[in-house]
This record gives sequence, C-alpha cells and structure tokens, in this order.
Amino acid sequence: MRRFVADKTRNLIRRASTWSPTCPVSPRPHHPPSLLSQPTSPPFSSSSPSHPSSITSPLRFLTAAALHPLSFPASPNSMASNYSTTPVTLQSVNPKVLKCEYAVRGEIVTLAQKLEQDLKQNPDSHPFDEIIYCNIGNPQSLGQQPITFFREVLALCDHPAILDRSETQGLFSADAIERAFQILDQIPGRATGAYSHSQGIKGLRETIAAGIAERDGFPADPNDIFLTDGASPAVHMMMQLLIRSEKDGILCPIPQYPLYSASIALHGGTLVPYYLDEATGWGLEISELKKQLETAKSNGVCVRALVVINPGNPTGQVLAEDNQREIVEFCKNEGLVLLADEVYQENIYVPDKQFHSFKKVCRSMGYGEKNISLVSFQSVSKGYYGECGKRGGYMEVTGFSPEIREQIYKVASVNLCSNISGQILASLVMNPPKVGDESYESYTGEKDGILSSLAKRAKKGIGMELPQMFPVVMQNGITQ
Amino acid sequence: MRRFVADKTRNLIRRASTWSPTCPVSPRPHHPPSLLSQPTSPPFSSSSPSHPSSITSPLRFLTAAALHPLSFPASPNSMASNYSTTPVTLQSVNPKVLKCEYAVRGEIVTLAQKLEQDLKQNPDSHPFDEIIYCNIGNPQSLGQQPITFFREVLALCDHPAILDRSETQGLFSADAIERAFQILDQIPGRATGAYSHSQGIKGLRETIAAGIAERDGFPADPNDIFLTDGASPAVHMMMQLLIRSEKDGILCPIPQYPLYSASIALHGGTLVPYYLDEATGWGLEISELKKQLETAKSNGVCVRALVVINPGNPTGQVLAEDNQREIVEFCKNEGLVLLADEVYQENIYVPDKQFHSFKKVCRSMGYGEKNISLVSFQSVSKGYYGECGKRGGYMEVTGFSPEIREQIYKVASVNLCSNISGQILASLVMNPPKVGDESYESYTGEKDGILSSLAKRAKKGIGMELPQMFPVVMQNGITQ
Repeated sequence: MRRFVADKTRNLIRRASTWSPTCPVSPRPHHPPSLLSQPTSPPFSSSSPSHPSSITSPLRFLTAAALHPLSFPASPNSMASNYSTTPVTLQSVNPKVLKCEYAVRGEIVTLAQKLEQDLKQNPDSHPFDEIIYCNIGNPQSLGQQPITFFREVLALCDHPAILDRSETQGLFSADAIERAFQILDQIPGRATGAYSHSQGIKGLRETIAAGIAERDGFPADPNDIFLTDGASPAVHMMMQLLIRSEKDGILCPIPQYPLYSASIALHGGTLVPYYLDEATGWGLEISELKKQLETAKSNGVCVRALVVINPGNPTGQVLAEDNQREIVEFCKNEGLVLLADEVYQENIYVPDKQFHSFKKVCRSMGYGEKNISLVSFQSVSKGYYGECGKRGGYMEVTGFSPEIREQIYKVASVNLCSNISGQILASLVMNPPKVGDESYESYTGEKDGILSSLAKRAKKGIGMELPQMFPVVMQNGITQ
Repeated sequence: MRRFVADKTRNLIRRASTWSPTCPVSPRPHHPPSLLSQPTSPPFSSSSPSHPSSITSPLRFLTAAALHPLSFPASPNSMASNYSTTPVTLQSVNPKVLKCEYAVRGEIVTLAQKLEQDLKQNPDSHPFDEIIYCNIGNPQSLGQQPITFFREVLALCDHPAILDRSETQGLFSADAIERAFQILDQIPGRATGAYSHSQGIKGLRETIAAGIAERDGFPADPNDIFLTDGASPAVHMMMQLLIRSEKDGILCPIPQYPLYSASIALHGGTLVPYYLDEATGWGLEISELKKQLETAKSNGVCVRALVVINPGNPTGQVLAEDNQREIVEFCKNEGLVLLADEVYQENIYVPDKQFHSFKKVCRSMGYGEKNISLVSFQSVSKGYYGECGKRGGYMEVTGFSPEIREQIYKVASVNLCSNISGQILASLVMNPPKVGDESYESYTGEKDGILSSLAKRAKKGIGMELPQMFPVVMQNGITQ
C-alpha cells in the first residue's frame, strides 16, 4: 500500500508542479532587483540550465517540499466576519514579514492538505487512505523511538522527588539516576523550573565543551557555548547581529534549508546565493563563492557572512577537509563570519567520509580566536537522537571581541534562557553513556539500530551520502 | 543575617544610584529625538517631577533592578587576543542591537557581581556573606517548589515507557498517570520528541481554550492559541508583525517590564511611553493615553498598538473592569491593536480585586472578532506555578483577518514549534486537577501554600496588591 501511495503521490506532485512555470515553494532570495539582479539564474528556476528543477529527481522532490505539514486553520467565526475595521492589513503589516517565504506554505503541502480533506469527506475519493507528511526531518513522528537513557534522565530531572524512592531503582537504570543527580547538582537549588543563565546552565555548558574537545582534539570553552531552543533561534540571533539593512548580504548555499532565506528576509537583509554543484556530488567550489561575492559587491551589497551546511541539508554532501580549509581561508581573507550549520554531524552513512567540525579545521590550520570569526550550530533534533520537539541546541561562538560577545549575550538575555529540558538533552547528546555504564549496551544498540536503519534506507533509495531527511522520505514512501 | 543583608544592600544601591544623574539601568524608550522628543520627562528621569526616581522607594528598588543576574564572562583566551582583524565590530554590528537596552546590564547587577567577586576573594570583605539575586521573578531559584502533579505528568510524558509498569503506580498519582495517557493520545504517534504543529499540539490547544472559556464565560477557539517558549517570543512575534520602521510606535506603560522596550528597539520601532499614576495606585488614565498618542502623532509616529500589563508588572496594580472598558474603547476608536500582558493573572492578593481578561471585557461589551484586534499573553513562569525554566506560554490571537493570521502563523512556523514540555505544562496550568481527582487535595494544598505565602509577604512588605516579583524580593531581603 505504501509503495502505491508513494507512486501516486509522485504523480500528484508532478501535476502540482505544472501549476506554475517556476517552483514557488522553493526558497528564493529576497534581494531587491536593484541590488542583486540575476534574472537568468534564480535558485531553482526551471529555466536555469545548470539547476534543472525536474520534479522526478528525488532530490528535487525533497528540496521542493515544504517544511511543516500543518496549515493554519482560520477559526470558523473569523472566516465569516468582516475585518474591514480592524487595524492590521496586508498593506500595514511589516513588509519584511510579508517578504519572508517559508516553504511551509508551498503547493505540495497545500495539495496534501486538500487530499487529506478529500479523504476525510470521502474515504474512497482516492486510491490511498492516508497522507504521511515527509516534508521535514521529524523522525519520531514517523515511529523512530527516542534513546531510552536520554528520556530516563529527562524524566528524573523533571520529577526529582522520586530519585530517592526504592521503586525508582526498578524503573530506571543506575547510570540514569546517577546522571540526574549530577545534573541537578549543577543547577543552583536543583531548580529545573528556574530561569538559568541566559547562555544556559554553566555545568551543562562545561559538559558540552568537554564533548566538543573530545570530538575535535582541540580545547573548547564553556563560555563560548550559548544553549538555545533548537538551532533556529541561534541562527536568528546571528542574523539579527549582522544584518543592518538590505545592503548587508549573507552567502547561502543553494539548495539550502529554508530557515536561512526566511531569517534573512525577516531581518531585512539580502541572500547572496552560491550554487552547489550537483555534478560533483553537490560540491562547494571556492570559485563559485568568489564569483557570487564579487557579483554581490558590484551590486552594492556588503557581504557579512558565509553559511555552510555540513553535512549538507538537503544535499547530504560531506565536505572534504581540504575543501574546508579553502573555505576558512576564503572567509578569513574576505572578512566574513563563518556560520557553520553542523547539525547533521552524526548523519554520515559511508565509511570513506568523515565529519570534521570547522572549529577543528581552523585550529588545525593554526587559526585561533583572533584569526577567524566562527559560529557552529548544533541541535538535538538531528543525528540519531531526533529529539525535534525538545527544542535543544547550542551555538559555539569563537573569534568575536569581548564587546561583540556582550552584544550577542544581550540578545540572548532578552528571551531570558532556553528551556532547561532542551539544555539537559544537549548535554546528554554531547556526553552519552560510556563503556562500563549500565546503559552503555542498550544505548549503543539503540543508536546503531537507528543509524544503520537510516543508512540502509539512504543507500537503497537514492545515493551514498545523504542526511536524515532522505531516509525519512524513504521510510514512508518507498521502503515502508 | 538576611535582614541585615537587605538593609546593607539597600544602602549600597542608594550609593550606586548616585553614580549617574539619570537612572540608566531602567529601560528607556529608544525613539529618535526627531520623532519623539520629551526631554523634560523621559521615563524614570530623576528630573521628572511626576515620576520621582527615589531609590528608597521599594518599587523603585525593584524596577531599577536588572533582569538577569549573570554577566557574560569573556573567555580567558579571548581577553588576551587582539581582535582588530575580526570582521564584526561595534561600528559594523546591527545598530538596533546596540540600541537595545536590557536591564540585565544595569548598575545594580554590576555592583552585585563586584560584591560577589569581593566575597569570593575575601569572605570578610563585607559585613554579609552572600549575594542573592532578586532582580527577576524566578521563584524556584529561591526555593519555591513546583506543583507535584505538574511534574509527575511531565516526567511520565518524557518517559512513557514506564506508564504500564507496576512500580509506576507506587511512584505517581493515578490522575497524573491518566493525564499523561490523555496527553500522549493527543500527540500523533505519542511522540513527545517530534515537532508539533507550529501553533502547538491541537489537543493541548483545545484544553487551553476550554480553560479560557471556563475562566471568562465566553467561548475560546483552539485555533486562536499559539503556544510559545514562554510569553517573550510571543511578544517579539507581534512586534515583528507590527513594526515597519522607527515611525511605527507602540504605547507602553512606564514603569514597564523591560521586555517591551528591548523588543521594540530590536525591531527598530519607537516606544511611546504612557505613565502610570503612582498617586492612584499606579492607575491607568485614558487622558494620559490620549495625550501621549497625540504627542506621538504630532511627531510623525504612527502608533500601532497599546501594551497593557494587567496585573501590572512591576507595579502590581489590578485594573478595574470599568477602566478596562475605557481602554478597549480607546483601542477600538484609535485603531490600535490591544496587546494584553496577562501573565500575572493568578497573582492577586486582595479580596476586593479580581482579574478580568481583556477578552472577557471585550466580549461582555459585545465586541467580537471584527471589532477589536486583541492579543492576550500568558506564561507558565508566573502565577503559583513559577515554572520559568520550562519556557511555556501562549498567546490568544483574536480580531485579525485570515490573511494576517496567516502571516502570524508563518512567523511562528519559522521556528517550527515551541518545546513540547512547555506546551504540556501550559495545558496543565489551564486545566489543573479537579475535585475528585486523586491529586486535587495535594494540588490545592501546594497552590494555596504558595499563594498565601506570596500574599503574606507582599502585604507585610510593601502594599496591598503586588505581583509575584515583590514577594521574591521580600522572601530574601526582609522576611527570609
């Protein structure tokens, strides 16, 4: 049944794609024509020969998909009312909000919702009985189970009153209980219901920094860590810091994860696109970066930062270390902040590729704090953890002067702090059970099971090096 | 000892307040002089006769306090480095970020940190041995215990694997187990680790809407609810929607909670201050609103919205229903969005005052969807719950056309969703245990204990009707 649904859905999507000559659900840079006019090669334009938008490509299928399944259902009474006297209209709303496009509103999702509505009214209206939304990497909504150890610790931190009860020993693993005690001891007053430091609980940041240092082989400083509600608010924070007007540009990969185009639009900046090369496995060419940077400059755009998504989203490419070095040199020479989206660092399914953080690459080149401004984003939503709903994540901020760091801290403090459960989870992700811990075996079993399942489906379905999003599509569309 | 510390701290603060002729830790509107010049009465100016800034007033003590206790400690290696070649400087950072002032950086906190440092280096350096930060309502950091039922449900939702285990019956109350089952059944796939609908889980919004309807006696629509990570992101969302440039103004009370001035600055708008009248218990006079609106208009500012904080923060005033009706008429006549900060709705400590939501007031006046644009903010951080670290909250959005609601939804969707634990908690707060539930007795005992303790300290310390923030100060400063 599911295979059939997938085939049927592809056909419907093909039909949907003919509704418009362009691909309006894909993100488009929102630069004013006067600043950056590239009419012959807009991202995803079907007329661009180097970026064919054929919907039959699995990659196109995914990148054209919208990001969130559910629309905003206007309340029944509101639909019937006349709003002519209410003060906010499309003419008077912030135009940056209007300009912001988020794939959530795209045609594919609209079509899916229509089909769902059809099925509700008449279950026989289509030759399938279910719509499964695969338009975002949301593995737990599709049956992926969370890591037991993580959830044990979260539950115990939520309700520490049971920590000393005898029944708890039977319900929870010993190392989860011990870890909960450790974490609670790091929180002033053991108060998981209190606002924390605006960068996050110090002890948890120390744990995360230790995890980064172990991963990279270079030291990490807890004071560089800003814990956030997922990676998205961290990205917004950096855009807010950097973008002064539409004359400020941010270099972003195409294809991209549409958070970047949306955030740049909301902050009133200009997306400066650079194109990944499908022919070389979605490679990132320095010549392309240079070309786009020069074009932007000649259009009066001041480029402030380069976004690199590694491993790529949605392309799944894994950058080679040599390529990363070139990118670092480019940013250093051009005076750009390097914004490294590294949330898929655990999602590499081929033995000959390896994740290297940009921080590690910079430090291995001998570049330290004073040489390069680098922000690395990480999230609990991806990897084998897939804890999207917990909204945990962090950014590691290096290479900014103390006065600029104060500005970043100020912006972080305006929202007080990120949620404590997400903070705890971020620390667990960067410090999972170790050999000898009671949970180690079950943890590695669960982790390996998830990753090998993702890898199997990724390879079976589309290619060799693909991020988590693909397996999610495959899970429901093709391989059950 | 604590009484002594409080007295001593007051003296230190008095001294600190003499460092500057104005009160720089208090929020100031960031309107350009050309747009709104009121040199004779800036908010909190010590030269404003109608708003004396005497630091000896307990109220001034609080409103002058900063919002977050902890500074950003620059990493040691970063302090030693030369950042002259890094690309972001104070000259090239977004000036809106620079302009944004958040009380977090104020003198009182700076002084407190200095004193703390002194104590660390030499415990005998001051006649007290501890600094307790009371600069924000953060009750659990000061020993207030969370409501057991809430935490039981959260723990069970975090780790549903134990729901069917026999030991769980002994550890958790029966109604907490039942509630966890109910909530999990409302979540597709029971996946508390999945992204939800960007407005929040539908079933939880239904629970919240039912709670609002029960509170107000007027229907509430789950589609009007947007669940958010605390109330702050909801406020930012509305500011983002409304503010197009510095020529857009938002009427805000003075004294205010500095989130408003910070958010308006970050979004590049103009804060239009209106002054609460201390002589009438921090009353809100329509004549003052009119005066400030006219002044703003004559300076070329287009006022888009009125912020009302009820019960007041930091003033603690509770608006009379008649006064609320006048405010509603004012917004309706002037074409303003009414932004109602109602997060202290449970914190009223006098029998002759009662909280009336603005939604209830509007509906009781016969004004519905098409007559008035109203947004009500609520949070799990305040009330008797005090769950600040959980980052739960919602806004109820009424009186906007479907196309504007789509814009609000789009902005919400860019961050995907708020954290699920916070969403669950928001539903619990609006639907606590009822008579007959196993937890009802312990719940009411805990709730009444917290509220009566807050009320006792509020009355003992300062006045008759004070929000939660005051008791927090009192708790540590005077009454232990």
